[in-house]
Amino acid sequence: MPYFDAASAAPLHPVAREALLAALDEGWADPARLHREGRRARLLLDAAREAAAQEVECRPDELVFTSSGTRAVHDGIAGALAGRRRVGRHLIVSAVEHSSVLHSAAAHESAGGSVTEVAVDRTGRADPAAYAAALRGDTALAVLQTANHEVGTEQPVAETAEACRAAGVPLLVDAAQSLGWSPAPAGWSLLAASAHKWGGPSGVGLLAVRKGVRFAPRGPADERESGRAPGFENLPAIVAAAASLRAVRASAEAEGARLRALVDRIRARVPHLVPDVEVVGDPVRRLPHLVTFSCLYVDGETLLHALDRAGFSVSSGSSCTSSTLTPSHVLRAMGVLSEGNVRVSLPVGAAEEDVERFLAVLPEAVASVRDRLSAPAPSAASSSPADGNSDADLVVDALGKRCPLPVIELAKVIGDVPVGGSVTVLADDEAARLDIPAWCEMRGHDYAGERAAERGAAYTVRRRA
Amino acid sequence: MPYFDAASAAPLHPVAREALLAALDEGWADPARLHREGRRARLLLDAAREAAAQEVECRPDELVFTSSGTRAVHDGIAGALAGRRRVGRHLIVSAVEHSSVLHSAAAHESAGGSVTEVAVDRTGRADPAAYAAALRGDTALAVLQTANHEVGTEQPVAETAEACRAAGVPLLVDAAQSLGWSPAPAGWSLLAASAHKWGGPSGVGLLAVRKGVRFAPRGPADERESGRAPGFENLPAIVAAAASLRAVRASAEAEGARLRALVDRIRARVPHLVPDVEVVGDPVRRLPHLVTFSCLYVDGETLLHALDRAGFSVSSGSSCTSSTLTPSHVLRAMGVLSEGNVRVSLPVGAAEEDVERFLAVLPEAVASVRDRLSAPAPSAASSSPADGNSDADLVVDALGKRCPLPVIELAKVIGDVPVGGSVTVLADDEAARLDIPAWCEMRGHDYAGERAAERGAAYTVRRRA
Repeated sequence: MPYFDAASAAPLHPVAREALLAALDEGWADPARLHREGRRARLLLDAAREAAAQEVECRPDELVFTSSGTRAVHDGIAGALAGRRRVGRHLIVSAVEHSSVLHSAAAHESAGGSVTEVAVDRTGRADPAAYAAALRGDTALAVLQTANHEVGTEQPVAETAEACRAAGVPLLVDAAQSLGWSPAPAGWSLLAASAHKWGGPSGVGLLAVRKGVRFAPRGPADERESGRAPGFENLPAIVAAAASLRAVRASAEAEGARLRALVDRIRARVPHLVPDVEVVGDPVRRLPHLVTFSCLYVDGETLLHALDRAGFSVSSGSSCTSSTLTPSHVLRAMGVLSEGNVRVSLPVGAAEEDVERFLAVLPEAVASVRDRLSAPAPSAASSSPADGNSDADLVVDALGKRCPLPVIELAKVIGDVPVGGSVTVLADDEAARLDIPAWCEMRGHDYAGERAAERGAAYTVRRRA
Repeated sequence: MPYFDAASAAPLHPVAREALLAALDEGWADPARLHREGRRARLLLDAAREAAAQEVECRPDELVFTSSGTRAVHDGIAGALAGRRRVGRHLIVSAVEHSSVLHSAAAHESAGGSVTEVAVDRTGRADPAAYAAALRGDTALAVLQTANHEVGTEQPVAETAEACRAAGVPLLVDAAQSLGWSPAPAGWSLLAASAHKWGGPSGVGLLAVRKGVRFAPRGPADERESGRAPGFENLPAIVAAAASLRAVRASAEAEGARLRALVDRIRARVPHLVPDVEVVGDPVRRLPHLVTFSCLYVDGETLLHALDRAGFSVSSGSSCTSSTLTPSHVLRAMGVLSEGNVRVSLPVGAAEEDVERFLAVLPEAVASVRDRLSAPAPSAASSSPADGNSDADLVVDALGKRCPLPVIELAKVIGDVPVGGSVTVLADDEAARLDIPAWCEMRGHDYAGERAAERGAAYTVRRRA
């Protein structure tokens, strides 16, 4: 049963499993104790730190193990901001950072700090010039991911680091998605990562802080991990995390090239196999193993279930699958379609025949969801161009209807709209705000904007052809 | 090789190991995902929460898994204080809480809060009346451990909870040392614990918050664990933690009685086997598996190494073994001897013959350390009572000498002090402040107090007999 959701959590790497089992016997004691069990644990912890530091390309004493990538980000950002409190309280992040970064930024803002969110283009890439322009005299910290977790686009870390260096501002790099593939580009001041993304166990994150970077840990004092990660070390798991990082990196070049070719295959073929699909993210500057596409007139959750029944585990940034009922902030920042969104992230060792089988079952899975939703047939929208009565605007009431229904309703009536005429969709589902403009872009109609309505919003579309 | 340091970290319980191995295969995925791997992980997480809640005696939705006991304490205290911020910013803790509690209190104080530290008696027990007296109109939270981690003394949780309840103040109970033996006494509002203390894996703590207790998690928002424990769940370890808690509790009554008898044996025999020993902590109201004693004229670190060479792993609260160079805050609060301190904490399954062997090697281990330090022979201090020149105070310069040398120097000269005369010890080692009065108590001399000196302090002792 192929699992294609490595970007959420990768299955435990065999090396991680082996190291974990060995360390369960040797490394369960308190590494701060003087007895032989404690000394053995300390040796394992030191060796794990050395190994991880080598892959991160930092000094062992610059690196601590946290309890998750999220904690590494939370505590890294909070510590760096506090360390430079005297300089100012301005923080720069990109709009497509992981939620742990954006939530840290929100917490900083509620505490009186200021935040600049750097926009991204339609591929999800932040412009290094925009980062440079956002730097101010009171900027305490800038944060940028190495590569995006939802669409795979690589960010211009080296150029941004150079701009930050010139301004004397530290840059925290979130390397969660990429560290299993390669070291982060040079120039970072702080780096965060998460072991279960590279096939290590859960419960382990990394936080590296370059010597010389001002850092003031928040929260109660604690003597463990240089005072930067409180609590008893998650030791057997740390050993497994370091061992698997080393192992995946040893084969990363060859495996990365292999998966990159498989992803290229998906990127190239999905638009031919499935009508009305938008493949998103940068096609070249991207993670090797990850591809995301969105399918018009499809409910993401239903599609995941259909693929799950067909034997494939993927994830989705559609609002329909999240508990918050809002579409992924990444897709929103990119301005691309969010409905029917599928993220395929191949684990190390993913088989070519499984990718082929995925491509074989995908069209039927999408078609079945569209059938169930009575979605319009591909390109049906331009089937019956009418004209006349262009003065009376058509209104579609999609209030109370969840994604992708507002877009489906729109597509069903566009044929009744005369060329040059317009149609207004009333919708209170958050995804409509993103998906109606994206639909216009895909269909070649003009999006005329939205206005507040009694409930939800009114989105107006002008038919082009 | 007997390991007698279960209170630091217990070896992995066989049930924990088995559950961990099973969960590594079934529970590595993201429980928030909809695919089968995610659903399997969610089922395991839910089952672990049910099982742990049963042992904690709370509802599953009151309990979250944290990344350590320390994090449970830090985040539990911070969340409870923030939740009652409007009531006030007063926090009550006992003087012998775990460092994670005292560090939380210190952080609260630096942030402008106020803290009352409730003193303990010579057994390490806090007086519930003192807790009740400390409660004020602006008290936001009180914290009390179920039992002390260094000396084993049980705290009056039920009575303290009753006083807190009457005042409408929530009580956070730190059950880290006792949860493997029994549920915490009723009446707590919040409860924290740590899995690796009961034979679960490291990387897992518990935080339970009773429905109705005001709680406002600090730090950046996160959707995991009801927003109370950010970061990807440490899932296979959580499963192992819950399974092992259930397993140890199933045999806790019988095993507790067995270990209690072994500890009673140590408590009774050590004072006869080793001269000049103080066994500390409550002899009856105590944890079943833990006993602590201090040996006069002994350097704790050297003694640990001697016992380690003899095959026994124990820990110590002596200043000589800690990196901070200060004696354990617990021993200090109790006012008992800190030098040559040894904590024996038996793991589940500890063998009677190992305890006997420990008692057999201990006298020689202590004697060898005393020999090396040229400590006075037992009761040598009263060998040559002199008199006359009682007007000229004897002064012992122990500046720059580390524990236990200042006390040894004192013991060496007390014979030269006339009865009724006094001797002053100049010392800059922190332990002297605790150990010189404790020595007086043990030897029957009068401790006349300390005064600041040019370096360190001057401690004056008046010879009685």
